[in-house]
Amino acid sequence: MTRDYRDVMALGDIDAVVIGASWADHIDIAVAAMEAGIYAACEVGGAYSVQECWKLVEAYERTRVPCMIMENCCYGRDEMMVLNMVKQGVLGDIVHCAGGYHHDLRSEIAFGKENRHYRLNNYIHRNCENYPTHEIGPIARILNINHGNRMVSLVSMASKAKGMQEYVRKEKSDDAELMQTEFLQGDIVTTVIKCAHGETITITLDTTLPRYYSRGFTVRGTKGMYMEDNHSIYLDGVHDDFHMGWKPQWGNAEQFREQYEHPVWKKYIEEGVKGGHDGMDWLVFKDFFESVKQGTETPLDVYDMAAWMCISALSEESIALGGHPVAIPDFTNGKWMNR
Amino acid sequence: MTRDYRDVMALGDIDAVVIGASWADHIDIAVAAMEAGIYAACEVGGAYSVQECWKLVEAYERTRVPCMIMENCCYGRDEMMVLNMVKQGVLGDIVHCAGGYHHDLRSEIAFGKENRHYRLNNYIHRNCENYPTHEIGPIARILNINHGNRMVSLVSMASKAKGMQEYVRKEKSDDAELMQTEFLQGDIVTTVIKCAHGETITITLDTTLPRYYSRGFTVRGTKGMYMEDNHSIYLDGVHDDFHMGWKPQWGNAEQFREQYEHPVWKKYIEEGVKGGHDGMDWLVFKDFFESVKQGTETPLDVYDMAAWMCISALSEESIALGGHPVAIPDFTNGKWMNR
Repeated sequence: MTRDYRDVMALGDIDAVVIGASWADHIDIAVAAMEAGIYAACEVGGAYSVQECWKLVEAYERTRVPCMIMENCCYGRDEMMVLNMVKQGVLGDIVHCAGGYHHDLRSEIAFGKENRHYRLNNYIHRNCENYPTHEIGPIARILNINHGNRMVSLVSMASKAKGMQEYVRKEKSDDAELMQTEFLQGDIVTTVIKCAHGETITITLDTTLPRYYSRGFTVRGTKGMYMEDNHSIYLDGVHDDFHMGWKPQWGNAEQFREQYEHPVWKKYIEEGVKGGHDGMDWLVFKDFFESVKQGTETPLDVYDMAAWMCISALSEESIALGGHPVAIPDFTNGKWMNR
Repeated sequence: MTRDYRDVMALGDIDAVVIGASWADHIDIAVAAMEAGIYAACEVGGAYSVQECWKLVEAYERTRVPCMIMENCCYGRDEMMVLNMVKQGVLGDIVHCAGGYHHDLRSEIAFGKENRHYRLNNYIHRNCENYPTHEIGPIARILNINHGNRMVSLVSMASKAKGMQEYVRKEKSDDAELMQTEFLQGDIVTTVIKCAHGETITITLDTTLPRYYSRGFTVRGTKGMYMEDNHSIYLDGVHDDFHMGWKPQWGNAEQFREQYEHPVWKKYIEEGVKGGHDGMDWLVFKDFFESVKQGTETPLDVYDMAAWMCISALSEESIALGGHPVAIPDFTNGKWMNR
């Protein structure tokens, strides 16, 4: 019996590990897995430095042992339908995408001591886009990031931090320590990323104010658009409305389901959707274990993981520098052009 | 008979002028009106330089003749209802607002030679947030800009410019000159503004891709939110949903109409809504002419006009500098703290 992951990896007959540790430990454990010749499935999160992303990439290049970032939102039903539409050219040339982690986590954060969640410490001490991959993952697949395109720079700005303070006063006023605590994490962090081929990506961290859940997934092309926040698709020459207030196309994305459902989801629905988060968790694990069984590369790899996770560290830099643009490293060292 | 505004102003018995010229002429004509002791109502637009905004402010401070930016969206029914909710504290402490000029203008721009619209030249030669006031106006009123708060810095990033090129190829291929024309104006320009009291404002110029019309008005506070794009209000402790896809609260803003309709609109509806753009044009002119008749200050003034219009020139600088943050001048020279 052990609680040390290194003991487990040393057992010798392990094919794969699933890393569900805190954000700060993901990369160390992933590197250890690669060194031990073990496939790693890594839960999502943001990086604390660009250097730890390089460490991940270099461990892979030294060992050639695959490691997959388990970005379940890449397997979301709507995200995959829109990806399918993009690949078929339905939305034209894609020039801009947006997404957000719009998720009211005030309770999880405020009760971080009780539920042992590392978010509490992060929200007290840091100010950055701390959870970028749910948005960046699906957008990266649409914009061919690391496969003919790459993210080159970003700017980040944070609003003041008011949500947690007000929540603690209302819901946890008996916690003297927390009542004295200053939260540095801005309530809304807006990050704009520029890509090599001129596309822009806007992502938003939005976790400490009251709101409904959304990933704010938005795709804009020269022939049409998709918007999650009203679940609508607009196609040039097909839709044409100028109504103020209520729009007739809200919710019309369902009308495109039959024609553009991603083949993976078509099959999945026939066979029966299972697992958490509306079924996307099962799909990401299926792809991972398929790669383990076949001994092949994973569909999301260390270059994706490094490029997506580094956004946290870089947004922290940009915010600290008053919104100064910062460069996003090319973790492929030029290979993105031909991958 | 004359076509020269200076001849008109020299007539001597003019109380007020309405300036509906091109963006580049607004401020020169407004300054001339002030020098002639004539109230000016100025159509909206963006500035080409910070210096012309100073010129406007200095002309007012020299003459004390009021000049009003005719930002009709400040009088929009939903904008005013949300303002009313904010003033009553319903949405709590406001930490973030967003807005956009989401308006497909491809036809107006491409046929700019035929319809003599100056947008064409602007889209060929410039790359910036060229039309910020429809969003900034209503948001400025919510965040008390120039009245206890001010905008201090911004960053701006532009996507590539693909929409106009593709539109011209499809709809105006017989225009040899336009077919050869390179448009510099990015399709989507995202600007993030930081305010003195820590609020952030995200505004988006979005005029050359297919889409439905929206001003993307969004207000985020510690007790609730409003979102135009699905016409919904979310209040802490009242609404609570985690549905993926279709959300039950879409369109629920109407449920708040009776309770929070702005008094100005309540009266307006009783008396009969009139004029363009769903009635808001009439309201802005009513306020202007009321000030002229009473000889009082206008409700929107040169400090508002300068602060809102300078965003265009500053976003142009930020984009040219690769997203570098730029400072927003304090056109009140410190008076914003006590106005």
